[in-house]
Amino acid sequence: MTTNSLILDGAQVADTIKEQLKARIGRLAGQGITACLATVMVGDDPASDTYVRMKGNACRRIGIVSKRIQLAKETTTSELVEVIQQLNKDPLVHGILLQHPVPSHIDERAAFDTISIEKDVDGVTTMGFAQTAFGFGAFPSCTPAAIIAILDAYNISIEGRHAVVIGRSPILGKPVSLMLLNRNATVTICHSKTQQLDQIVKSADIVVAAVGRPKFVQGDWIKPGAVVMDAGYNKGNIGDVDYDACMRNASAITPVPAGVGPVTIATLLKHTVDAAERASMSNQ
Amino acid sequence: MTTNSLILDGAQVADTIKEQLKARIGRLAGQGITACLATVMVGDDPASDTYVRMKGNACRRIGIVSKRIQLAKETTTSELVEVIQQLNKDPLVHGILLQHPVPSHIDERAAFDTISIEKDVDGVTTMGFAQTAFGFGAFPSCTPAAIIAILDAYNISIEGRHAVVIGRSPILGKPVSLMLLNRNATVTICHSKTQQLDQIVKSADIVVAAVGRPKFVQGDWIKPGAVVMDAGYNKGNIGDVDYDACMRNASAITPVPAGVGPVTIATLLKHTVDAAERASMSNQ
Repeated sequence: MTTNSLILDGAQVADTIKEQLKARIGRLAGQGITACLATVMVGDDPASDTYVRMKGNACRRIGIVSKRIQLAKETTTSELVEVIQQLNKDPLVHGILLQHPVPSHIDERAAFDTISIEKDVDGVTTMGFAQTAFGFGAFPSCTPAAIIAILDAYNISIEGRHAVVIGRSPILGKPVSLMLLNRNATVTICHSKTQQLDQIVKSADIVVAAVGRPKFVQGDWIKPGAVVMDAGYNKGNIGDVDYDACMRNASAITPVPAGVGPVTIATLLKHTVDAAERASMSNQ
Repeated sequence: MTTNSLILDGAQVADTIKEQLKARIGRLAGQGITACLATVMVGDDPASDTYVRMKGNACRRIGIVSKRIQLAKETTTSELVEVIQQLNKDPLVHGILLQHPVPSHIDERAAFDTISIEKDVDGVTTMGFAQTAFGFGAFPSCTPAAIIAILDAYNISIEGRHAVVIGRSPILGKPVSLMLLNRNATVTICHSKTQQLDQIVKSADIVVAAVGRPKFVQGDWIKPGAVVMDAGYNKGNIGDVDYDACMRNASAITPVPAGVGPVTIATLLKHTVDAAERASMSNQ
């Protein structure tokens, strides 16, 4: 198969972000500060365990302390809330990540919303979402921020383009839609109840797939020249986009793996360093 | 001119809402409670003065106490914040409305966000927006809620329809988009940077005009059979929609005046009664 699609190399974008972080981590070290991300995991889901370990390793490789808090799957909402409150108070912790999903008996939204906005480096709080939507203050969710970062790294213009987002979750579809809107895209938000999805996607200059279903977006849905951002990750390293088929029409496309994923992790690291710097400044 | 458009009679929808409120206001009276809306106005803008007086009159007519706080145009942000904090603490006040816009030297966002979420009956706080976006808890902004209420009153289905919202303000375009999304519409958000706006509007089953420009939406932008919701109000009782022209294609349309406007005020009254009931329950 031949193609002229530009492969949007997330691994390279992530490396550039991490390279820039090193100097900042060095400056913090000069002030006696080590940026620290606390990851909280409840239960022993193997996929979540892998994610948490990946994030921890990424922290350590760059010089960020990763503090892992592992809680039993029987943990109650109020116990989890208390753990998070302790982390909020801990001056040595700059970012808090609660690994999604938590066991179903826990009120995940209440747990997320316990995270103080200054430490919400994963962008999961209700207030963080609203501040993102209004374009100020908080750390946006990492995957939406990663999608924007890749577009920016490749100088792909957003303003005035028609972006179609497939998915409407609180930490992906909704925030990425509002971030694209705030960058002056015209944004259409699609989901499981959308009719004639193929026709709507065909009108998009930028397609964001955030469905959670393998190879969901078909090649003939893509307008020639459109940009395809695959935020999906399904078992077996398969995205939400039929990559080979979409590539035939797309002007640019993110692969899976090595597309949005590594930039999401780099964004988490960046937010943690941002939080450490802000904390050091407010302590001066 | 002849037409088969259904005129969506906002005055009638508002009357129905207010009729239902009377019984609830009566029950509160039986508990010795009078629902109370505090309206805060800074400066002496004549249009704002008219709006605040209209809202106050609407309260009084139905048996809600309207407490008007008029502040000098030189009021500082911190003075305004303190006034709002006092109203937050006042157990006799159930809802707080800060009339937009405030003089430009005031940080309006900080003032809005001082309103406690329990009393944010106008749906202007950052947290209220997020809770609306996530579909829980807070009072939504009144105009978006009014638009949904009119659609519901006329049994116009939202699920699976393509809604095009023109405008992206924090209290109108953004929240109405997310409310329509949460009702399972496919939603496109357009604005001043949108290209080929006419073509996008032509693909809509439901058009929401929230632009703030008189007769902005043209008749030939409307797909035959579409529903047109005009949230605009411009000088001389002119909406954001070219009403006569759009009527030729629309299956249903809100007029200006007597469309979205009266339902917005009725929604504010309803939220105030809701807030009074919730306060009475949490005091039991």
